[in-house]
Amino acid sequence: MKKLINEPSTVVDEMLDGMVTAHPELRRLDGTNVVVRADAPVAGKVAVVSGGGSGHEPTHGGYVGEGMLDGAAAGEVFTSPTADQISEMIQAVDSGEGVLCVVKNYEGDVMNFDTAAEMADMEGATVDSVVVNDDVAVEDSLYTSGRRGVAGTIFVHKCAGAKAAEGASLEGVKAVAQKVIDNVGTMGMALTSCVTPEKGEPTFDLGDDEIELGIGIHGEPGTERTDLMSADEITEHLAEQVFDDLDLQEGEEVVTMVNGMGGTPLSELYIVNRKLQSMLDDRGVETWDAWVGDYMTSLDMMGCSVTVLRVDEELKDLLSAPASTPALTVAE
Amino acid sequence: MKKLINEPSTVVDEMLDGMVTAHPELRRLDGTNVVVRADAPVAGKVAVVSGGGSGHEPTHGGYVGEGMLDGAAAGEVFTSPTADQISEMIQAVDSGEGVLCVVKNYEGDVMNFDTAAEMADMEGATVDSVVVNDDVAVEDSLYTSGRRGVAGTIFVHKCAGAKAAEGASLEGVKAVAQKVIDNVGTMGMALTSCVTPEKGEPTFDLGDDEIELGIGIHGEPGTERTDLMSADEITEHLAEQVFDDLDLQEGEEVVTMVNGMGGTPLSELYIVNRKLQSMLDDRGVETWDAWVGDYMTSLDMMGCSVTVLRVDEELKDLLSAPASTPALTVAE
Repeated sequence: MKKLINEPSTVVDEMLDGMVTAHPELRRLDGTNVVVRADAPVAGKVAVVSGGGSGHEPTHGGYVGEGMLDGAAAGEVFTSPTADQISEMIQAVDSGEGVLCVVKNYEGDVMNFDTAAEMADMEGATVDSVVVNDDVAVEDSLYTSGRRGVAGTIFVHKCAGAKAAEGASLEGVKAVAQKVIDNVGTMGMALTSCVTPEKGEPTFDLGDDEIELGIGIHGEPGTERTDLMSADEITEHLAEQVFDDLDLQEGEEVVTMVNGMGGTPLSELYIVNRKLQSMLDDRGVETWDAWVGDYMTSLDMMGCSVTVLRVDEELKDLLSAPASTPALTVAE
Repeated sequence: MKKLINEPSTVVDEMLDGMVTAHPELRRLDGTNVVVRADAPVAGKVAVVSGGGSGHEPTHGGYVGEGMLDGAAAGEVFTSPTADQISEMIQAVDSGEGVLCVVKNYEGDVMNFDTAAEMADMEGATVDSVVVNDDVAVEDSLYTSGRRGVAGTIFVHKCAGAKAAEGASLEGVKAVAQKVIDNVGTMGMALTSCVTPEKGEPTFDLGDDEIELGIGIHGEPGTERTDLMSADEITEHLAEQVFDDLDLQEGEEVVTMVNGMGGTPLSELYIVNRKLQSMLDDRGVETWDAWVGDYMTSLDMMGCSVTVLRVDEELKDLLSAPASTPALTVAE
């Protein structure tokens, strides 16, 4: 294993230290793997938080800041954060207006966020949550009942965060988060496995000429293992399943995301985006905005995912509202 | 070779198409691999352009936009753009106020930008240039006389672009670009080789437990091949050579960049940043801002570079001035 690390056991701790050092607008809660806005709790504002296993950077800590998340709890690599730490986070960001938890649908995350919400509730916080399950590839999987939550989560962060910044109630922020969840779909694929620091070798074996379609962000099995295909063929396969799942119709408007898994050059993501946009054009679907980059990764995995979000005027306004976070800045 | 591409020969063309599709504020000049601001030429403003081989994305096209570059010429992978295309770019962005070319020090780039400047000059443009040579690792190399130009170039784009946006003269924009060049140093390393689409196999061989220090962004040999070291040891090695080259003194102020080579997870770059900031603290040097991410890559290479820029009030103002480009947004 070749990694820029000191010890597998200190990766998350040192990564978070390096992150808050680079971004003084974030603060790490003492003795935890939680980062929050340095100015949290923000008076008069509903707080939006998320979290999950590490190894998906910039997810989720990279989205903490004005206009997006108030806090993010990081578990160890590919491991859910503890309920204790999530609860501490909720209490640290709660201004009294309530806290919305954006949870990706993995059993550990769902369970620990539920427990944490109960703990925080006992301390007087009003907590609600949404569960993101945008991965159209598989129903039930290694770590989930139902579909997995993947890169579409970032659109939830953006829209819910913007709604909260506008001064909406917890109910209003939750409704927007749920609207995004109801209108977003994602499918991913891997050219190579990721290598976790602890294991130090590929999480799964993939032949020199094989790829895995429908892969999860921890290397969980997908829908199909096939011979290497061209970028256009891969994009077609991923995008068509997402379009079908959303029942995308001519004349509709979308925001797209081509997300890199961590080890894929940006140039290749642009090649995927080229095909994706041409497919949408062919269907008479209008792309209002196209995101291309590493938004939710799987360590050093080579591969990508394609996300499509059906948008209306409200979501477009929220997506273009100002945001200032380590991984995403939207200027006024 | 496993890549998300269609054909090695169409990588640059399709990548640029995918890029301008995602970023309608950019425009591709017909029949070229040049991207310019869609609103170029910008009346009354000096234009700043750059370019070089592809494979370093988001460099340089990702920095085209308000407050940074007016245009970027992309060569084939690791190959200089042609003088013809650079000349077309210069003429397309020239508003009559002059054009500054920011050239990385590689023989092909320097030669083709020189020829292009002469061609554009004959067409009536006023062209000047600066040559970036921030890589402290080696004097002379595979493709250069003198030092190579690497990730520090992005600071030149930012400061020169901001100065031009302020309405400075060509002379003033050039002076700021040169000030950055005179105060910036970078050193890089690789854990793995990159794989070019054309060759389809590693550009150089590196043993399972070996790393290369002082590597160039095309996989050119560095200063030393050693056994794998810890992230802290690697950071110390890179940063100390940069500090020495800049003759960094207690009480000075810097902006730092930990740049990923394309295949390195962001989490690992933050671990490098953690050590870098602690070293600066120990020397009594103040970090005014710390950049961490993939700014100038080498396709899928795993590794990083460390850049330090000594700043004064003028450079701090220019670095924090608004910018809106695909790869870098600075809000007002």
